[in-house]
Amino acid sequence: MNTQPHVVIVGGGFGGLQAAKQLRKSNVRVTLVDRHNYHLFQPLLYQVATGGLSPANIATPLRAILRKQANCQVLLAEVTDFDVANNRLVLADGELTYDTLVLAAGATHSYFGNDQWAEFAPGLKTLGDATEIRRRIYLAFEAAEREPDPEARKALMTFVVVGGGPTGVELAGTLSEIAEHTLARDFRNIRPQDARIMIIEGAPHVLNHYDEALSQRAADKIRQFHIEVHTHTRVNEITADHVRMSSEGCETIVPTRTVLWGAGVQANPLGKRLAAACGLETDRAGHIPVDEFLNVVGHKNIFAVGDIATCLDEEGKPLPGLAAVAMQQGGYVADTIAARVAGTGQSEPFKYHNKGTMATIGRAAAVVQIGKRQFCGFFAWLLWLFVHLLLIVQFQNRVLILFQWAWNYATFNRSARLITGDDHVVIVRRTKNSDPHAEKTVEVS
Amino acid sequence: MNTQPHVVIVGGGFGGLQAAKQLRKSNVRVTLVDRHNYHLFQPLLYQVATGGLSPANIATPLRAILRKQANCQVLLAEVTDFDVANNRLVLADGELTYDTLVLAAGATHSYFGNDQWAEFAPGLKTLGDATEIRRRIYLAFEAAEREPDPEARKALMTFVVVGGGPTGVELAGTLSEIAEHTLARDFRNIRPQDARIMIIEGAPHVLNHYDEALSQRAADKIRQFHIEVHTHTRVNEITADHVRMSSEGCETIVPTRTVLWGAGVQANPLGKRLAAACGLETDRAGHIPVDEFLNVVGHKNIFAVGDIATCLDEEGKPLPGLAAVAMQQGGYVADTIAARVAGTGQSEPFKYHNKGTMATIGRAAAVVQIGKRQFCGFFAWLLWLFVHLLLIVQFQNRVLILFQWAWNYATFNRSARLITGDDHVVIVRRTKNSDPHAEKTVEVS
Repeated sequence: MNTQPHVVIVGGGFGGLQAAKQLRKSNVRVTLVDRHNYHLFQPLLYQVATGGLSPANIATPLRAILRKQANCQVLLAEVTDFDVANNRLVLADGELTYDTLVLAAGATHSYFGNDQWAEFAPGLKTLGDATEIRRRIYLAFEAAEREPDPEARKALMTFVVVGGGPTGVELAGTLSEIAEHTLARDFRNIRPQDARIMIIEGAPHVLNHYDEALSQRAADKIRQFHIEVHTHTRVNEITADHVRMSSEGCETIVPTRTVLWGAGVQANPLGKRLAAACGLETDRAGHIPVDEFLNVVGHKNIFAVGDIATCLDEEGKPLPGLAAVAMQQGGYVADTIAARVAGTGQSEPFKYHNKGTMATIGRAAAVVQIGKRQFCGFFAWLLWLFVHLLLIVQFQNRVLILFQWAWNYATFNRSARLITGDDHVVIVRRTKNSDPHAEKTVEVS
Repeated sequence: MNTQPHVVIVGGGFGGLQAAKQLRKSNVRVTLVDRHNYHLFQPLLYQVATGGLSPANIATPLRAILRKQANCQVLLAEVTDFDVANNRLVLADGELTYDTLVLAAGATHSYFGNDQWAEFAPGLKTLGDATEIRRRIYLAFEAAEREPDPEARKALMTFVVVGGGPTGVELAGTLSEIAEHTLARDFRNIRPQDARIMIIEGAPHVLNHYDEALSQRAADKIRQFHIEVHTHTRVNEITADHVRMSSEGCETIVPTRTVLWGAGVQANPLGKRLAAACGLETDRAGHIPVDEFLNVVGHKNIFAVGDIATCLDEEGKPLPGLAAVAMQQGGYVADTIAARVAGTGQSEPFKYHNKGTMATIGRAAAVVQIGKRQFCGFFAWLLWLFVHLLLIVQFQNRVLILFQWAWNYATFNRSARLITGDDHVVIVRRTKNSDPHAEKTVEVS
């Protein structure tokens, strides 16, 4: 019988995986539970959604990553609930007891109460999301090629990205690259270059986690890629064939068949479950409250890290949902657990070290903010490329991705632009009898 | 108005694509119809099914391949029927008229009238099949890792491949590589090396398209990879938890959760459709009869090539379902059409030039037969590798695959071993209450 304390980590994302790895020298037994058998390098998910990389390029089997870590076991299972009183996890097909629990189950997208939009506007959090978005993008061009009616064709070639955060901007930028370069000469009846790409953002700026001046420069750069940037704009309705949006009292209906959701995120529902089990309340986005040691309030043997927890910085603002935050928290929690097991006392409260943030905004263009320093453009993109290659190579030992990128960049190639997911071709239905929404602007009182 | 004759090719596999490409200099207008947007390099599909390659490594968008061919248009559509009297194809969502039709819709698997087995024993013809098989293989190991009951664990680690043709042998060989090397140190509760891998073949030999001596050597080699080869064995029943098979009057029940189907193929159902439209009958496997010019019997403007047609060699035996056959036929039909359009007269009857056949049988082992020359082992594998690299690079300009293979070979890595296809983990249900079929041999009268 193993008498080492049993640390159960739920979620093999950046936070959970870091915690597991950093416990490798501790005198504990670690079980990492995930419902997927891989760790996903989410920052590059948009590349899968746009056909630049294959799913396997950004996903690595957890067992392969943790193979050599003798004190760690990987469990493919779905956690459904928590029995805090008995230190027990309820699984879909069993149960699991722990001495210490680390919840790192991440986030999912939020439609702000409009869940009926999900069908028409997929978000981008999982590999399944990415291949679904890829399918929709390339099917839209295929359907446009076959569409005789000019209005319907225009709708098929209109891509609306809801949300001007990093995900939205990355998706829109890559869509522009696809239309302008990748598919440029692939069709006979349409000009992919005519595609209309729109970013809809409620706030005054896109990328509003960055300084205003940098956001402004990024928006200018984005517009150079022939992307329409609509800030101060709210989405009121998303259906199979249009998006209704309003800006400054004016309502506009844009006929479109492809809407991508990059607007809201909320914590994994397990956050709410654990909160309820602990007698706590989550915030509106489902985040579970943690103390300065990342302990779920009132529970010394339960931690929550990454996108599932609310953690405030020194100014009282919540930390952003970044891989860097999750990894630092995962590492911190591992050190805290190790210290407690070793009896070397409580560690310092958690403190996030912001080493900078970055996002790509299109072909050979990115924004980077490191402290007060800001970059926008090609140099920022090189920096972005360098950092992400470093991270992914470090994580996944994936030298191939470098070749793939070099190849793609040189040839404008997106070799992974497969329409998969359904064995039969999915015909984008023409709503022949429904009156084709001409784009029109109406006064709203 | 374009007055060039309109050649419609149904299917973008080896035959159809070759026909389209070889018509590039003819005074015709070509439309290639496929229900997928990619050409699939089927000979490597088993590598996707076993996690060695990603779908995008072996699938190339048809538009990318045919981009520069001005007289060719690609149509993503599903053909549902033929209106031969009016030279018209019926599509799922429209129609298409032709002057000349080339049917190259390929084959699908056949369960010999036992379609209820399909659910438990997926075949390997499409990318969807490959990712489904990949999911089942890796989920079986995951479930075994969690299974406390030794009998159930044994069933989870038993893999039955039905059919000892190239597909079955390739799948079994790669399964063995996965168990012996790739996953060797990934688990804590099971030894993947204990996996039981069986090939079930009704004929006296595996790979029975090869000379008997070579088949024999291949079988010996296969057994060295710890694969059980059961020839002269018939499958009588496949269910969710066992396979019932009989050999020489003895019936055996093997408890297993993973059965892969590599046994039978039949022509795409479109073969039957076209035959009916032409007042013809297909053979039992649904192949449409063609004359020596590959014309559908009695129809000078309709051709059928590849796996959908019955074409006999000089000895009156049907040609095998190989990429080489389909490509030679596609090219021949293109030349015939070109000659007729140019008015340079009828070409010679079609004749297949057999340049040799080859199949891998495991890590660094293959069989190759070129005329009377036969190779089995490492040298044959090098030859196999060389030929396939040449073919795939020529087809798809995919230098990357070379790196991927070199990497995989050197590291025993199967980086694409993702369990995808369902966003939630699929729990392999334990049939707790059903009596666990112990493996037993019973006399059958």
